[in-house]
Amino acid sequence: MPTYHAPLRDMRFVYHELADGDALAGLPAFREATPDIVDAVLDEAGKLARDVLQPLNRSGDEQGCAYENGVVRTPEGFADAYRQFREGGWTSLACDPQYGGQGLPNLLNFMVEEMICASNLAFGTYPGLTHGAYRALHAHGDQALKDAYLPRLVDGSWTGTMCLTEPQCGTDLGLCKTKAEPNGDGSYTVSGTKIWISGGEHDLAENIVHLVLARLPDAPAGTKGISMFLVPKYLPNADGTPGARNAVNCGGIEHKMGLHGSATCVLNFDGAKGWLVGKPNKGMRAMFTMMNMERLAVGIQGVGLSEGSFQAAVAQAHDRRQGRALSGTKDPDAAADPIIVHPDVRRMLLSMRAYTEGMRALGGVVAKEADVADAHTDAARRQAASEFVALMTPVVKALCTDLGFEVVNLGVQVHGGAGYVRETGVEQFVRDARIAQIYEGTNGIQALDLIGRKMPEHSGRQLRRLFHPIQSFIATHEADEAMAEFVQPLAKAFGRLQTATGYIAQEGLKDQESAAAGATPFLRLMGLVALGWMWARTARIALDRQAGDTSGFYAAKLATARFFMARLLPETGALVSEIMSGKGPVMDVPDEAFALSA
Amino acid sequence: MPTYHAPLRDMRFVYHELADGDALAGLPAFREATPDIVDAVLDEAGKLARDVLQPLNRSGDEQGCAYENGVVRTPEGFADAYRQFREGGWTSLACDPQYGGQGLPNLLNFMVEEMICASNLAFGTYPGLTHGAYRALHAHGDQALKDAYLPRLVDGSWTGTMCLTEPQCGTDLGLCKTKAEPNGDGSYTVSGTKIWISGGEHDLAENIVHLVLARLPDAPAGTKGISMFLVPKYLPNADGTPGARNAVNCGGIEHKMGLHGSATCVLNFDGAKGWLVGKPNKGMRAMFTMMNMERLAVGIQGVGLSEGSFQAAVAQAHDRRQGRALSGTKDPDAAADPIIVHPDVRRMLLSMRAYTEGMRALGGVVAKEADVADAHTDAARRQAASEFVALMTPVVKALCTDLGFEVVNLGVQVHGGAGYVRETGVEQFVRDARIAQIYEGTNGIQALDLIGRKMPEHSGRQLRRLFHPIQSFIATHEADEAMAEFVQPLAKAFGRLQTATGYIAQEGLKDQESAAAGATPFLRLMGLVALGWMWARTARIALDRQAGDTSGFYAAKLATARFFMARLLPETGALVSEIMSGKGPVMDVPDEAFALSA
Repeated sequence: MPTYHAPLRDMRFVYHELADGDALAGLPAFREATPDIVDAVLDEAGKLARDVLQPLNRSGDEQGCAYENGVVRTPEGFADAYRQFREGGWTSLACDPQYGGQGLPNLLNFMVEEMICASNLAFGTYPGLTHGAYRALHAHGDQALKDAYLPRLVDGSWTGTMCLTEPQCGTDLGLCKTKAEPNGDGSYTVSGTKIWISGGEHDLAENIVHLVLARLPDAPAGTKGISMFLVPKYLPNADGTPGARNAVNCGGIEHKMGLHGSATCVLNFDGAKGWLVGKPNKGMRAMFTMMNMERLAVGIQGVGLSEGSFQAAVAQAHDRRQGRALSGTKDPDAAADPIIVHPDVRRMLLSMRAYTEGMRALGGVVAKEADVADAHTDAARRQAASEFVALMTPVVKALCTDLGFEVVNLGVQVHGGAGYVRETGVEQFVRDARIAQIYEGTNGIQALDLIGRKMPEHSGRQLRRLFHPIQSFIATHEADEAMAEFVQPLAKAFGRLQTATGYIAQEGLKDQESAAAGATPFLRLMGLVALGWMWARTARIALDRQAGDTSGFYAAKLATARFFMARLLPETGALVSEIMSGKGPVMDVPDEAFALSA
Repeated sequence: MPTYHAPLRDMRFVYHELADGDALAGLPAFREATPDIVDAVLDEAGKLARDVLQPLNRSGDEQGCAYENGVVRTPEGFADAYRQFREGGWTSLACDPQYGGQGLPNLLNFMVEEMICASNLAFGTYPGLTHGAYRALHAHGDQALKDAYLPRLVDGSWTGTMCLTEPQCGTDLGLCKTKAEPNGDGSYTVSGTKIWISGGEHDLAENIVHLVLARLPDAPAGTKGISMFLVPKYLPNADGTPGARNAVNCGGIEHKMGLHGSATCVLNFDGAKGWLVGKPNKGMRAMFTMMNMERLAVGIQGVGLSEGSFQAAVAQAHDRRQGRALSGTKDPDAAADPIIVHPDVRRMLLSMRAYTEGMRALGGVVAKEADVADAHTDAARRQAASEFVALMTPVVKALCTDLGFEVVNLGVQVHGGAGYVRETGVEQFVRDARIAQIYEGTNGIQALDLIGRKMPEHSGRQLRRLFHPIQSFIATHEADEAMAEFVQPLAKAFGRLQTATGYIAQEGLKDQESAAAGATPFLRLMGLVALGWMWARTARIALDRQAGDTSGFYAAKLATARFFMARLLPETGALVSEIMSGKGPVMDVPDEAFALSA
């Protein structure tokens, strides 16, 4: 069974050395986030993940959630773990002090979330969704709603959900049918069925706060007629305690490939009482406040599962002995050498490591900019950061979940047959990771968001928030001989990205389908270039600091950066070819190609 | 829930048009394999798969096998389905008429196996392993053993297993500890523990015949000291009926990610009675007789699961409605267009189709050569075909299972959230497909077999069995304008394969690790070029026959061939870069890169 040790050294590297998270402590909002506090929080979170959450990961998968007569029971130990989680203050880390939060940066919170996901993703969905609901309510709720609900979401005594999907609408929320009728007293009566609601019902908290997309009676068709409503499971009493049961009921839970400990619920709103969050017909905007941060969080899920799988694979590669090294026996006293001597096993481990650490670095750099966007004192800096985050959100979500799935599958492969056996615990990473490519907007939708919305926005200004720093990094370091092995591959891949960007931008003007046909490889291309940038920046730091480093940390970083450049970044060449083949191969296809041959 | 319709038109295309399977009927061994018989067999197998096997696929996954006190119960309906399977003569299709077989070609049998795997892979493992045991015994057993056991394996009243793995040895069979001591009467006493034995115990047949790798008392160490023994569950009586229980017992079954209906057993041989198959200490050779054909069969599993997933995805893409076509509303009467209008959905479906049909074609061409190798009257033709099959076996095994896994995951992605729900039935393809990349030799081992054994053999003569026909195809068609869009990309990819082959061959002489570091991308490169060759040959036939074809079959083939060339074959460029980066990025890595950061 896998054990989990939080990758604290690498997290500190990303926080303090790569993403310059310590600069955040210079902003009034994050004055508490001193290096000591940050490291102490990471340490404590690592212990929580290792000692409380990870031990429940496999039993949670085996037991799953149980449904009976509207009641959902989470796996054994989850309720107690949630109590410890809540009491430890982990729900309030990145929340507003005005409502009881600790006001620490997203950058730090995402690292804690990575640990939670690595050790027990199913458990993590409950506080994860709650934090999304907190953000939406914090940004769009009126003061009365905020005062009544935010303190409970922050201290975790109540959890939150996001109710978007209905049987006929997932990606296309414009098809939403749930209705909300005004009661005349400022409240609304909400009716409809929502599906795939994570944490829609459970036994972890005393109340559940649903944020529900629904239509007002006079709402225009499509997404322009959607509003957001807050519908609590129990209506709060005047003193804030949970009161009468509201007319929202769980009609069942889904039996899924993985994530068994996370209750995925059908929720029936049968004339439930709710309150409007934000303006009428502006529910999509409120939803995206939550969704954007959720998308980054889902990307981080990919990083966490990758790390968990990598740790198990490294342990296996040291323990398992089969065959002898091609260069000659390494351990003559044993019947066979550990499989880590074999080049193909090292290829798998290094792929896992290079992707995982590259994704952690990228996630960190984007999260730090999210903090700048939230809290910088200079409006221009906030704007710039916000544009960078907007551009990178679909990239982080899709890239980190796609690569995450590749990494956890490599983890199974390193284990051989044992990896396929449930008891070993690594196939669970595969089953749990698979959903992350789908929920909070499928990765195909992320790619369309990138090329159709983020790229053209402000005549490409968001795009330049990524391109300019990469260009400037290349220009600064291209004459440095020690950096050549990193800067040259990055420059080549970046050139490919520029070529593809020109093509997509130009084609998109003429024919949207031509751009859309290349959306998925384009997102991956941009993502791989961003990882290349992370690895080149990492190499720069490692070159500067490796002298006198007896831990081997920077030497390992340099070796992994070399592997990334040589073995993983070349994929960019294939991606640009795919993109530039245009719409023909995808769209000029007779219907018979999509009929079943008989 | 998915339904399954055997892709008969495409199978007939591969059999009769692409692989020229009808030529086999000109050989004395395959005189029965007339086009009419072949088509009739395919038709009937399609009905069996659709009506008998597929309906048990999901229930078999849900129930799994049950173990109690040494007894294994297969899921409900499996025993009855196996009875129908056996009575229909499906176990004997490609077996020797001398022992009751029908003597039909492997090419046909593999198509039937594809249908079995597509409709119910777990069920298929029982007759699949039996056929492997049949082949090993047929090739290496003495006449008495063959007379006693082959008729039962052929008619399916008894099933077979292959007992290789032990807790300490999987890939490295030289570490095998199971012992066989001669009893002085021609029989042996076999003792040891074998794990991960598919079909090691079950309730489908009246007896089970285990082929067991074990060591004789005086055996040399390593793989040179391994012999093969036949150990029946019940010792046959003089009249051939099952008699006394032998001392082989099932100690438990594995709980796996998927393939739940297939019993994966721990077998304890506690002084069981057995007989030597083949010569002492030549067990590895006998094992490879089975293993090579099994490896092709596992590749075909990848094809079958891909087809099953593709059919479900196509149905979903026509049924599910979300959003509108970018080029304008396609179905104004409905609230939304079917998702098949979206370029990214078409990209996924076409990737699934291009891989699946390409793999089917490649599997067919290799299977046909396996028949030529078995049964041609000209020894030189047999030799040439056997060399081609030897070269392509690891490629088919690894490529078709790796691509198969990609395809079934695309199938889930096309379904969105529904794909993650067990009831939908497509996530099972993912869980079932995952093992195929591991068993019968991990795909990493296939790659090492390719570069370390198959490529250098006879100074590269096996390699030329693939390269010469591709070169000759390109030379024949390069001046043909209609073929340019297929031949040019193929020629480019083939050039990359030649470059990489030169590099691997040269490096392998100097430093085996340098070649091994590129083994996995090299296998994939060769596999993609082989698929490119299949699609170019398919395009040639389709161009010749599309005029007057009202079914749209050839037009769809041409469109899919174009998609393959434009969107999937460019990956070869990235692969050649990876390969030629050599051993440094993989081997010159400090140990710290494989330690867990703390």
